[in-house]
Amino acid sequence: MRSHYCGELNLSHDGQEVTLCGWVHRRRDHGGVIFLDMRDREGIAQVVIDPDTEEAFALADKARSEYVLKITGFVRPRPEGTVNTNMGTGEIEMLGKQVEILNEAQTPPFQIEGYTDVGEEVRLKNRVIDLRRPEMQEKMILRSKLTSAVRSYMDEQGYLDVETPVLTRATPEGARDYLVPSRTHEGKFFALPQSPQLFKQMLMVAGFDRYYQVVKCFRDEDLRADRQPEFTQIDIETSFQDESQIMGMAEDLVKTTFKKVGGIELGEFPHMTFAEAMNRYGSDKPDLRIPLELVDVADLMAGVEFKVFKGPAEDPKGRVAALKVTGGAELSRKQIDDYTKFVSIYGAKGLAWIKVNEIENGANGLQSPIIKFLGDDVTMKIMERLDAKNGDIVFFGADKEKVVNEALGALRCKVGTDLNLFTTDWAPLWIIDFPMFEETDNGGLTALHHPFTAPTSTPEELEANPAEALSRAYDMVINGYEVGGGSVRIHNEAMQQTVFRILNIEEEEQQEKFGFLLDALKYGAPPHGGLAFGLDRLVMLLCGTDNIRDVIAFPKTQSAACLLTQAPGEVDGTQLRDLNIRIRRDPASATSH
Amino acid sequence: MRSHYCGELNLSHDGQEVTLCGWVHRRRDHGGVIFLDMRDREGIAQVVIDPDTEEAFALADKARSEYVLKITGFVRPRPEGTVNTNMGTGEIEMLGKQVEILNEAQTPPFQIEGYTDVGEEVRLKNRVIDLRRPEMQEKMILRSKLTSAVRSYMDEQGYLDVETPVLTRATPEGARDYLVPSRTHEGKFFALPQSPQLFKQMLMVAGFDRYYQVVKCFRDEDLRADRQPEFTQIDIETSFQDESQIMGMAEDLVKTTFKKVGGIELGEFPHMTFAEAMNRYGSDKPDLRIPLELVDVADLMAGVEFKVFKGPAEDPKGRVAALKVTGGAELSRKQIDDYTKFVSIYGAKGLAWIKVNEIENGANGLQSPIIKFLGDDVTMKIMERLDAKNGDIVFFGADKEKVVNEALGALRCKVGTDLNLFTTDWAPLWIIDFPMFEETDNGGLTALHHPFTAPTSTPEELEANPAEALSRAYDMVINGYEVGGGSVRIHNEAMQQTVFRILNIEEEEQQEKFGFLLDALKYGAPPHGGLAFGLDRLVMLLCGTDNIRDVIAFPKTQSAACLLTQAPGEVDGTQLRDLNIRIRRDPASATSH
Repeated sequence: MRSHYCGELNLSHDGQEVTLCGWVHRRRDHGGVIFLDMRDREGIAQVVIDPDTEEAFALADKARSEYVLKITGFVRPRPEGTVNTNMGTGEIEMLGKQVEILNEAQTPPFQIEGYTDVGEEVRLKNRVIDLRRPEMQEKMILRSKLTSAVRSYMDEQGYLDVETPVLTRATPEGARDYLVPSRTHEGKFFALPQSPQLFKQMLMVAGFDRYYQVVKCFRDEDLRADRQPEFTQIDIETSFQDESQIMGMAEDLVKTTFKKVGGIELGEFPHMTFAEAMNRYGSDKPDLRIPLELVDVADLMAGVEFKVFKGPAEDPKGRVAALKVTGGAELSRKQIDDYTKFVSIYGAKGLAWIKVNEIENGANGLQSPIIKFLGDDVTMKIMERLDAKNGDIVFFGADKEKVVNEALGALRCKVGTDLNLFTTDWAPLWIIDFPMFEETDNGGLTALHHPFTAPTSTPEELEANPAEALSRAYDMVINGYEVGGGSVRIHNEAMQQTVFRILNIEEEEQQEKFGFLLDALKYGAPPHGGLAFGLDRLVMLLCGTDNIRDVIAFPKTQSAACLLTQAPGEVDGTQLRDLNIRIRRDPASATSH
Repeated sequence: MRSHYCGELNLSHDGQEVTLCGWVHRRRDHGGVIFLDMRDREGIAQVVIDPDTEEAFALADKARSEYVLKITGFVRPRPEGTVNTNMGTGEIEMLGKQVEILNEAQTPPFQIEGYTDVGEEVRLKNRVIDLRRPEMQEKMILRSKLTSAVRSYMDEQGYLDVETPVLTRATPEGARDYLVPSRTHEGKFFALPQSPQLFKQMLMVAGFDRYYQVVKCFRDEDLRADRQPEFTQIDIETSFQDESQIMGMAEDLVKTTFKKVGGIELGEFPHMTFAEAMNRYGSDKPDLRIPLELVDVADLMAGVEFKVFKGPAEDPKGRVAALKVTGGAELSRKQIDDYTKFVSIYGAKGLAWIKVNEIENGANGLQSPIIKFLGDDVTMKIMERLDAKNGDIVFFGADKEKVVNEALGALRCKVGTDLNLFTTDWAPLWIIDFPMFEETDNGGLTALHHPFTAPTSTPEELEANPAEALSRAYDMVINGYEVGGGSVRIHNEAMQQTVFRILNIEEEEQQEKFGFLLDALKYGAPPHGGLAFGLDRLVMLLCGTDNIRDVIAFPKTQSAACLLTQAPGEVDGTQLRDLNIRIRRDPASATSH
């Protein structure tokens, strides 16, 4: 019906007859003339309709916001002084000669223009209107382009797109599964996959050599801001390659597609060990755009009589660390109190600080409630280690290592953001040398990734000292987001058995949970590995948003509901009977149903 | 690890040192030398290992079928007389110098070579081994290539890949839904989508203009040979285009990708009305490779006293049709009996036939149990209308129109296939002008497609004579498979209300089922339409298989189970309690649990 998209018109179309189809974004009457801003996916064009063209004018006069029109007319340069450099089409306008109303529209629940003060709940409930906003269209277009660029890259590299099942068994990630009752197998359930992990490994054993898939995954967890019950993974697996080759390909994939889609130069990705990341940044997904670091000061504190520091300093599982914030001396008491509340979320019992006002005067030039407990000597040694300068503030964390890392790691990002200390727009890196296992609360060991991750050591070394063993896993981190991660997998049965033994997973449980993969390993499994990217997160980074719901066309709320379709919904009794299930009502609520 | 895939080696590599990684497909010892056929995704290469290279020979000697090896050596032409023209790499062999055993393998449950006598159940249970067979690898590779070609085409045409939810509400297709209990919304359920129909229409209302997605869809139905509980659709929707443009694009998509991936020239797709297809082929998905047609003979039968024909001939809802099969006179009595049984599946009470032996002798030259009932005169008039020739057989169907169409339509394909009457390899077409509605058993009307399909008529015309109304729907049929279908949708609220009125869908039910789409239609819906292709079926056609499980890596059986992973499986009580459901056990079986 159209000859051009609204957004593509420019001076090169001067004098041409064109037909646009789109929505009335804005209508103004000015000097007896009607101005319509016509909008479609590609942008907005201004259409002028003169009373001379009677029929067109009469129709345009009826048109209201969001009416769907087809307009034919001629492109002309805008009169001098009316050029709008904020619009892609701002140098031209169309003189409309024929107007057809393709559909009318009620007044939408909120304006497409200047939406910002509309709450997210209203936006999600009226998602169809919300998605009309140019900002949202841009995000969806960017997402589509990124997905397409990723697929092109993978296709070119000889990776095969193989679809894996959605109706399947529980997978080894260990989060809560979404379940689907089976009608034909009474009392049994499918699980929606948390990832295609086992299937992609089986595809390697089957000899497909290079696999990828852009695939929906599911986790029935309580949702954080950057999580959704269904999310999309770029899932990759390859045979006969080691971690350096897999990481090289994955890095090139992200660099190539970010450049192609967003014009972004990510540069080289440094490699950092897990241990170094935890030590310097308190996090295994450090945001390296922020130049702040944690510095250990336990050795200096060990002698002080101040229990808050002395205890953790002498505890082998404790940590005492300092975080120097350049320019932080100007923080108000109120701001510091807020940060104290902030670190308490992570279990920190307080937040000690020292402001550096006049370092040339020694401890007298510092301001802090804790110097009297530390003593001048220790205080100045700390200042020296941190190379503290006038105008800095130093925060302290002293607790179990885990608490200090989480609290100071999060504080580092928060203060860095609040004070806008970013030194670069993009800070990608690889985290490597993860521990194989972490301790559980009851003193056992659990796999830090999943039990198919290969260790860097032999089965004998692994068994001798599992707590110290490192894995061949790797995570890609960009600007503090873990955007992807994976590992070289175990392809050897003896090694797999060793890991299961260390994890205390009995033969029966192995067979029940992963039997089909273990069977596959017996029949000639190649060395293989891979990784998975969170597509939603990559798109969030590209779009510069920290709201995952802004990069998903039809997202769910944090209580896992869709406000647009009112999903989940009621179902009738026949359906449930067919599925051999019934709804469990607790006695208290039974009467109200 | 490798320098080349096994399958890519040829004479151009003569003299080069190469490294292969792959599986031992076959091992022979011959004249003190070990021959290994090494297999990977791209094919098979012969490796010769000489006892001179002691270490390599010792390792190769240990290798058994399906061991995973890395072999380095030199490519050389095969000695004269040993060139194998059946192999892509048959002109060369590799002289192996270094062998590394990357993994051992137990003897697989069946041979990768010459699998054909392995039952499908064994293949599905050992799918990882089954997928190693070169035939299966080819099918998965073809599928991946087709998907990629489809996406490239859609991307180039400006279609946006937008993901729609998997956890959603019941959709309007009307088959049984798979349900997912919600943990956070007690007693409520998500449904897995039977298609993204409502979402893609909403994307059009939101202004995305051109949408596509390669997307999993779900139907909890009893399975036929070409159905799976989860299947993949190429889902497409576009705004501001009419049916001719949508069909033109869809046709070009299939032609372009079949050419690119399979080297197949599909030619032009003729358009045929639903009425003509039913009349000539008894089916709305006629296989036009078979040159047989149904011919109405009711007018000739109306006068005969034979009840079997007379009744249907005089019934306005009856049909009497003949199917002439060229060369069919040679069918044996046994074969005809089998066809009689075959048509009884479709409700036919019998299968009358006339063999044409010596047409020059009139009715005396015919052989049939029914001529005596028809009389010579009517018989010869029928022969004349059919232009029957010696060697033909004519089958008859006389019953309700629906029964005749289904029985003779199916017989047409069966006989055509049995006698190999195909006149071409590829016979695509479009079926158009579908009825808007069909009668339900209780005399009401139901939508032949879905209630959002636009009619060719105005709301007034539609309401005046709904039974005769045609829709703007279209199906693409290739070789008797419905590979895709769609329609122009209703974008006008008044028309939508008219259709709901005719379908007797009350306001409340409308709101409950489709309220969010109906709301969307109020705010400026553009004219739009689209279609969906069954990707699995397209791949089946490309691969020349009629078994959908051969084109899906991890398919389910006809009872909707995965023999490899044993899905669906048991789940524990805690999970069910979290989901607020319990398993319903019927009293009879309660004791056994």
